[in-house]
Amino acid sequence: MFRELLKKIVDGCEGGLAGLLMGYDGIAVDSYLSEGAQSDIQSVGMEFSVILTQARNAVSLLGGGALREVAFKSEKMTVIVRLLNDEYFLALALEPDGNYGKGRYLLRSTAASILAELGA
Amino acid sequence: MFRELLKKIVDGCEGGLAGLLMGYDGIAVDSYLSEGAQSDIQSVGMEFSVILTQARNAVSLLGGGALREVAFKSEKMTVIVRLLNDEYFLALALEPDGNYGKGRYLLRSTAASILAELGA
Repeated sequence: MFRELLKKIVDGCEGGLAGLLMGYDGIAVDSYLSEGAQSDIQSVGMEFSVILTQARNAVSLLGGGALREVAFKSEKMTVIVRLLNDEYFLALALEPDGNYGKGRYLLRSTAASILAELGA
Repeated sequence: MFRELLKKIVDGCEGGLAGLLMGYDGIAVDSYLSEGAQSDIQSVGMEFSVILTQARNAVSLLGGGALREVAFKSEKMTVIVRLLNDEYFLALALEPDGNYGKGRYLLRSTAASILAELGA
């Protein structure tokens, strides 16, 4: 179920490489790699889960309220993270010239279905 | 000089609240608050400098190359960070409904002037 939803996000976005549903503890619920993509998405997710936990705490401490979305752009990759609730986040990795706006939209619009599946 | 450039970014962007030029060690070079904005931009920057350092290391470790930009969106604030070089970053805080695209553009287009001022 989760894989189908992740596939819909990744394949629906130009330049989509990989999708991941993971807990902030670094344990993945499911992941999906687009055809031909090579990525150790689990390792990427584990690194980001630590960073996201810190960012959530920092933003909350600073009176910014709940953190909803974080995006990282590097020379070779763009990663968009949608924070679902207090336990899980959804991440999409894109090529640097991938469709960022569509990726954000697909993450946001799929979040409700994933939360429903999670029973959260 | 730096303050003038920060002011141009913050006041040039709809919903702009604050601008900050800081080292990854958490020491600010300069900052600018828009009229009426209340923000402990230094504390925000110090929290983010730790997170950015970790994100840079993670992205580089994972083969993503140099990290260029990170954006955080929370309920009450959006923060866009432009990583300038190995020492400094430039951050813009916006209202949640501020002009994100213009903010990113202004950070990117001002980066060269700031790097020139920094003598980097």
